[in-house]
Amino acid sequence: MENVKVLIWGFGAMGKGITEMLLGKKGVEIVGVCDLNPKLIGRSFKESLEITTVDKDIIISDDIDDIINNNVIDIAIIATDSYTRNSYPKIEKIVKAGINVISTAEEMAYPYANEPKLAENMSLLAKKHNVTILGTGINPGFVMDYLVIALTGVMENVQKIQVSRVNSLSPFGPTVMDEQGVGITVEQYNERVKNNDLAGHVGFKESVFMIADALGIKLDSFDQQMKPIISSVYRKSKYGEVKEGNLAGIDMTAQGFIDNDVFIDMQHPQQIEPELEGTNTGDYIKLYGKPEVNMSIQPEIDGGIGTISMCVNMIPHVINSKPGLKTMIDLPVPRAILGDIRDLIDRE
Amino acid sequence: MENVKVLIWGFGAMGKGITEMLLGKKGVEIVGVCDLNPKLIGRSFKESLEITTVDKDIIISDDIDDIINNNVIDIAIIATDSYTRNSYPKIEKIVKAGINVISTAEEMAYPYANEPKLAENMSLLAKKHNVTILGTGINPGFVMDYLVIALTGVMENVQKIQVSRVNSLSPFGPTVMDEQGVGITVEQYNERVKNNDLAGHVGFKESVFMIADALGIKLDSFDQQMKPIISSVYRKSKYGEVKEGNLAGIDMTAQGFIDNDVFIDMQHPQQIEPELEGTNTGDYIKLYGKPEVNMSIQPEIDGGIGTISMCVNMIPHVINSKPGLKTMIDLPVPRAILGDIRDLIDRE
Repeated sequence: MENVKVLIWGFGAMGKGITEMLLGKKGVEIVGVCDLNPKLIGRSFKESLEITTVDKDIIISDDIDDIINNNVIDIAIIATDSYTRNSYPKIEKIVKAGINVISTAEEMAYPYANEPKLAENMSLLAKKHNVTILGTGINPGFVMDYLVIALTGVMENVQKIQVSRVNSLSPFGPTVMDEQGVGITVEQYNERVKNNDLAGHVGFKESVFMIADALGIKLDSFDQQMKPIISSVYRKSKYGEVKEGNLAGIDMTAQGFIDNDVFIDMQHPQQIEPELEGTNTGDYIKLYGKPEVNMSIQPEIDGGIGTISMCVNMIPHVINSKPGLKTMIDLPVPRAILGDIRDLIDRE
Repeated sequence: MENVKVLIWGFGAMGKGITEMLLGKKGVEIVGVCDLNPKLIGRSFKESLEITTVDKDIIISDDIDDIINNNVIDIAIIATDSYTRNSYPKIEKIVKAGINVISTAEEMAYPYANEPKLAENMSLLAKKHNVTILGTGINPGFVMDYLVIALTGVMENVQKIQVSRVNSLSPFGPTVMDEQGVGITVEQYNERVKNNDLAGHVGFKESVFMIADALGIKLDSFDQQMKPIISSVYRKSKYGEVKEGNLAGIDMTAQGFIDNDVFIDMQHPQQIEPELEGTNTGDYIKLYGKPEVNMSIQPEIDGGIGTISMCVNMIPHVINSKPGLKTMIDLPVPRAILGDIRDLIDRE
């Protein structure tokens, strides 16, 4: 059986990580890498990753049509956007070429939440071209939704869901420091919030609606909030520096309501060096009902490696799936791939 | 759309619990109850459950052929056995009648582990009759296998898996006290082990092989051990009593080996009143690799309610599945059913 052939679209931190992970797996090969960054175009991907162990080399190209037209490709991993609207034209192009898609865009983890019309379009388009589209990642895609849903599987009834992901931003680079407002003053925070220039966590609505739809409940409303995490001590990480009184990061919360009561309650504070003020990082799921379930993962699951792994590990499930737009609740359980990826492809 | 129609085969603790749970759900109805217990045959299941709220009543019957021949049935839940070999003739009968099956038998959670030939037969038979067979439960079926597998989904690589389920037997009745040797002397324990009269936990091999197959690894060998948990204090629960020096329960361990190294390491001590000697009950999963994952659920997920819930919550997935013998790693994620079960049935 031939290797599974993968196109990487977007060669940033995620795209590179996915490429490196795939290079360590059996039965799969990278057949194309697309990125618009002038510093990358025309370069060898081996050189770019500083690796020498791979036989075959790929030249990074900005011409997606050329890559698609000149290669046999089973699946494209698109790691370019956070929002469905922005990734939609890319997904459309890939699907029309008869290629399966995995997207890292946070909103694509459950596009029905924010873009129901585009989701419907993608679903029809995928069926027409006999391919499958999946959005996944660590969060949304796993910690604050899939894992919650799986744990409700042991329950007769669920009265309330509380989920908290408390993570450290210390390992991340300058882009994340900027996106999460690490080190800025309260005035700068207020200004950026006013200018809609501080995204924070993208994905609460996706997680909340994925859970609600999986459990078969209708939410009356959804709300989310952002507030600054003001440090009372000096904090410093590799790429972040926070003076006392400035932002160590931002705390985001969200709720799904039924009858004015909070049914799904989410909290996701992100900051550098949380332990300096006694915060224990971790992923926490508390399910009230019959029986109660009280789960914790300490420290939190690594977000970068987690997203990279989810994208790679879902490849066989996406290839095996019935055509259409799928989400994590439609496909079999994700799992690490320790053997040959080809052995996981359904030949029926 | 018509209600989903369920047959309950086996009206012990699990069968009763499943029935009670189903009576609280929308879009589903019980159309038959089969049990061989002379105290139950001919009785009303409402009377037997001491409930008055259900419109329709069912008379418990020992004549499975009569039930099958005189009812339209979508799915049978068979809660009669622990071993595949014993439940096989029952499953065969149901499948030949064109009815889907969920089995609570521990070995049926992954029948390939102990009964590969019977598993193959069931797979062919289910496909021939266009129905699906699934074995599930809290453990095997979820805590020590499915949940482990799901958590590996966030990992690039897995070096070792440690799973521990530390539970209290205090809520359980006289049957479990006997099965787990609660209160017996060390001499009695040795005698029962010699006579092969102490089953302890059934399901380690199923869990270990489900994990190995999901991850695509070949184990070189499997081993399991049993040892007594000797109490150094007096312990008492509703149905159990343990004198100092006697058994509070039994501790079971299992290993899956690769190259003489333990790759999957399992521990499952079960006893009454564990807190009297400082044991914290809980479910613990530790995954070594990239990244490490360190999960705990405290206290442990309730075993009785958990098994009941898994059986009910998987009904839509089993009805929706492609025909064949399926396991938890083939089907979509389990989830609590809070709405109408009919809304979860795929009409394509």
